[in-house]
Amino acid sequence: MDKAIGVMDSGIGGLTVAKEIMRQLPNERIVYVGDTARCPYGPRPSQEVKEFTWEMAKFLYHHDLKMLIIACNTATAVALEEIQEAFDIPVIGVIAPGARAAIKHTKNDHIGILGTIGTVRSKAYEHSLHDLRPTIETYPLACPKFVPLVESGEHAGSMAKKIVAETLQPLKSKHLDTLILGCTHYPLLQPLIEQFMGPSVSVISSGDETAREVSAILAYRNDLNGHNVEPRHHFYTTGSTTIFGRVAKEWLKNDKLRVEMIRLPRG
Amino acid sequence: MDKAIGVMDSGIGGLTVAKEIMRQLPNERIVYVGDTARCPYGPRPSQEVKEFTWEMAKFLYHHDLKMLIIACNTATAVALEEIQEAFDIPVIGVIAPGARAAIKHTKNDHIGILGTIGTVRSKAYEHSLHDLRPTIETYPLACPKFVPLVESGEHAGSMAKKIVAETLQPLKSKHLDTLILGCTHYPLLQPLIEQFMGPSVSVISSGDETAREVSAILAYRNDLNGHNVEPRHHFYTTGSTTIFGRVAKEWLKNDKLRVEMIRLPRG
Repeated sequence: MDKAIGVMDSGIGGLTVAKEIMRQLPNERIVYVGDTARCPYGPRPSQEVKEFTWEMAKFLYHHDLKMLIIACNTATAVALEEIQEAFDIPVIGVIAPGARAAIKHTKNDHIGILGTIGTVRSKAYEHSLHDLRPTIETYPLACPKFVPLVESGEHAGSMAKKIVAETLQPLKSKHLDTLILGCTHYPLLQPLIEQFMGPSVSVISSGDETAREVSAILAYRNDLNGHNVEPRHHFYTTGSTTIFGRVAKEWLKNDKLRVEMIRLPRG
Repeated sequence: MDKAIGVMDSGIGGLTVAKEIMRQLPNERIVYVGDTARCPYGPRPSQEVKEFTWEMAKFLYHHDLKMLIIACNTATAVALEEIQEAFDIPVIGVIAPGARAAIKHTKNDHIGILGTIGTVRSKAYEHSLHDLRPTIETYPLACPKFVPLVESGEHAGSMAKKIVAETLQPLKSKHLDTLILGCTHYPLLQPLIEQFMGPSVSVISSGDETAREVSAILAYRNDLNGHNVEPRHHFYTTGSTTIFGRVAKEWLKNDKLRVEMIRLPRG
C-alpha cells in the first residue's frame, strides 16, 4: 500500500488543508487526526501545545507516512522545528507557506495576520515575513472567538457574521492589500471575512498554500503517487465523532467518510 | 560569498523568472545566462535544444550555485530530467510549477496552454497536468510569433496587440477559466493577453510560480540567505548586450545592471 500524508490539527481546522491536498493531489492518501477533545490550542501555554502536538505526531508516525503536515498554526509556531529534527520524513508547517504566498500577493507591503492568541504571541508570521522581506508592515490580530465558533459547526450563520465584523473592525483602516488566515479553522469563515474586508484585500488561506508546497516538495523528492485509484483516507478525532463527522462530511463533500475516536496520549 | 541561484533561458524570457525571484527572495544572488544568439529555441529539433541547454548548464555550474533554474519551457521539456540526474544541486524547471498552479486555480478543469512549437509538441504540460488530475481538459496553442516579438523589444505596441489577438482567437470559444503562459517570454505580453482573454480567465505565469517553489524548496533544504545585503547579480548573454541590456533594465527596473557577452559552447 502506498505511504500516506499525515495531517494533524487541534480539531477540524486542518480539514481545510486536507481538502486542498485532496483537490490538488487526488491520488494521495491522507491520515488525519484532530485533537477535538483538547481544542482550542490557541489560549494554552506553549509547553502544553508542544506536548499535545508531539502526541499527535507520534500517533500518526506509526501510520506509514511519507510526509507529515502540522496543519495548525499554533502547533507549527511552537513545535515544527523540533519535530522536523526528530523525524526522518519531511515535516511541513502552515506558517511559512502562508507567509511566502502573502509576499507573492502584496503590492503595498501591508499585510494583516489573523491568528489565535498563541500564534499572534509567537510572532511566527512576522519572523517568517521579515526573513523574506524586512520592509513588510504587519498587522497581527488575535481572533479568540473564531475557533470555538467553527468547532461548534456555526460558521455560516448570522452569529458568525456578527462576530467576524466585530473582530475585524480594527483592521478596516490599515490599508491592507493582503490578509493571512493564520489559523486553519478560519477558511470556513472565509466568505464572511472577504465580504467584510472588501475586494481590495486578498485573503490568503494557509490551507491552499500548504497544499501547493506539499505538491512541490513531494514532486521534488520524486515521491508522488502515480496511480489513479481513489485513495482510502482515515480520520481520527479525540472528541465526539458526531460534530467532527458532520463538519467533515459537509466540508469535504463526502457522505461516506468514516471517523474514528482515539484517546491521546496513548497509554 | 553566498552561493547563487543560476537561471538560464534561450534569451530574455527567463528574466520574468529572475524578476520574481528577486522580488520574493531579495537576499538571493542570481547568475543569469540568456542564449540570445541562438534564440528562439522553440522551432529547433529537440536534440539541438538539449545540447544548447547542457552548454548553458555547464557554464553556470562553475559559478558556485546552490540551485539551477531552467527558466525556459522548451529546454525544460527536453533536458530537465537529464540535468537533474547529473547535478548534485536541485534543478528546477518551469513546467511543473505552472501546472501545479493551474490545477490550484481552475474550477472548471478547462486549461489553455500557450507555448512554443517545441513545448506544445512535447506535450509536457499535458503530462504534468494529467499526472496530477486526469480529468483536466487541455487546450494547447503554439504561438511562434511571440518570442521573436519579445526578443525584439516590441512587447507593448500596437503590432504586439494585433499579433496577440490573431494568435489567441482560436481559444476564445473554449470556456477556459485558466491559461498557462507556457513560455517565460510571454509574461512580457501578459497585459495584452489578459485584455484579450477577459476577466473570466486566470492567467498563470510560470515565472511567479517557479519563484514560489524556489522559495519553498530552498526553505525546505534550509538553504535561504539570511543576510539583508543587496546581492550583486550577474547577467550574461551570448548575443548583443544592447537589446538584452535595454529590456533587462526596463523589466527589472534597475539602471545599473551590467550585462556581459559570452560565447557558447566554451572552447
